[in-house]
Amino acid sequence: MIKNKLKKIVFIGAGNVATHLSKALHNAGFYILQIVSRSENFAKILAGNFNTCYTTDISKIIPDADFYFLCVNDASIETVAQQIKLNNPLLIHTSGSVDINVLSQYSENVGVFYPLQTFSKTKEVNIKEIPICIEANTSQNFLALKELAESISTRIYEINSLQRRYLHLAAVFANNFSNLMFTVAEDLLLQHNVPFELIKPLILETASKATTISPSLAQTGPAVRNDQSTINKHLEMLKDNPQILEIYKLLTDKIILRNKK
Amino acid sequence: MIKNKLKKIVFIGAGNVATHLSKALHNAGFYILQIVSRSENFAKILAGNFNTCYTTDISKIIPDADFYFLCVNDASIETVAQQIKLNNPLLIHTSGSVDINVLSQYSENVGVFYPLQTFSKTKEVNIKEIPICIEANTSQNFLALKELAESISTRIYEINSLQRRYLHLAAVFANNFSNLMFTVAEDLLLQHNVPFELIKPLILETASKATTISPSLAQTGPAVRNDQSTINKHLEMLKDNPQILEIYKLLTDKIILRNKK
Repeated sequence: MIKNKLKKIVFIGAGNVATHLSKALHNAGFYILQIVSRSENFAKILAGNFNTCYTTDISKIIPDADFYFLCVNDASIETVAQQIKLNNPLLIHTSGSVDINVLSQYSENVGVFYPLQTFSKTKEVNIKEIPICIEANTSQNFLALKELAESISTRIYEINSLQRRYLHLAAVFANNFSNLMFTVAEDLLLQHNVPFELIKPLILETASKATTISPSLAQTGPAVRNDQSTINKHLEMLKDNPQILEIYKLLTDKIILRNKK
Repeated sequence: MIKNKLKKIVFIGAGNVATHLSKALHNAGFYILQIVSRSENFAKILAGNFNTCYTTDISKIIPDADFYFLCVNDASIETVAQQIKLNNPLLIHTSGSVDINVLSQYSENVGVFYPLQTFSKTKEVNIKEIPICIEANTSQNFLALKELAESISTRIYEINSLQRRYLHLAAVFANNFSNLMFTVAEDLLLQHNVPFELIKPLILETASKATTISPSLAQTGPAVRNDQSTINKHLEMLKDNPQILEIYKLLTDKIILRNKK
């Protein structure tokens, strides 16, 4: 722990990712030196967890940290990087879809530290189980990031920028789009006075099954059986619900098509 | 237990639902009297669990059971029901999408016992947590089914045929279609040499989050933020993958549209 305590980290950004990462790294013994955020309120709250300082003015960034984490939205990463006027700091972004090279013209030491999880301020997650994808421009920087990652998680992966883009895209399907399916299910139940509660065990088991056996082997339902009689009943039931109908039709077609191959 | 042991059950069908239900009811103390199935092999294996008899000939069905469970596919429920030549047995089907009235012309005592879960022979599920939706044509039959359901699960719901059809449709979204999203994620990862392993914690957390807070509140990602720059990058990345591209486009549009409302 003494080794980690000597290492100092500055966080630029005070949103969900910055909050979860800074807390985990603080707990692992790293010293959170400063929080920099456009939002004074967010910066103050986050810095308060560590009794550390904060600023809304990036020109007041403290120069002698070991790591500078840019936890800002994708579109702002480059803009923020170019405002950091320091001498080749280890600049790290945490985005799934931004290439490491975006940082290269602003420092000779750059890396990516991408935790693959859906963070929200209202729900705790077990950070030890979160896969962390790392990439760096030199083997020395890579080792520094690896040490950092290993201090908070047991699942570390070396993933390059191209792979990470596809991983991020896969996460849109695995998280955003599957969540839309759960939302549609919730809508259909509420429209017919059936408590959403009822379908929760199915949602949990679906995820459990897809991660235990492969999702391609876990596929069930009328589409994979090409059960046209049930499919037609469902289409009829959705005739006053054109938005949901359109989703039903397309995804049923895609499952039937996959199954034919 | 002695009370349950006096009650005798015949199962028609020996697939996933019959297997899970008969085992659970046997464990709860009911007497599995007979397994009837077109597949001699399946019937023999299932009956073997209870040291009970089996037949492939429905005309040899034993007449004095308390419950007759029709665990056959939706299209066969009525055909099988009309082959059961007994004196008003308590005929029960286990389907989400078939109306209770389908059974009415074959007996004066009919019911539905629909366990809302995805069953597979290869993966154990905790039946105590599975919601069981029941419906019957008389209050006496309803109470008999309720007692049966309560002996194996803690989650019993009275659901009528119309609600059950929509529940089944909602389950197609919550299970079949969300599983397709996980399959697409798996495809994208394998195409870029990223282990599927990496995305498993995200899948599990997605389900956990949707069932803890509401899925409509859990929605994240480029579509809900209307982040056109990331969306356009994703469309470009999928340009050689027209099947997946089509899904991405439609579901992104639907999330954007929902969010505008």
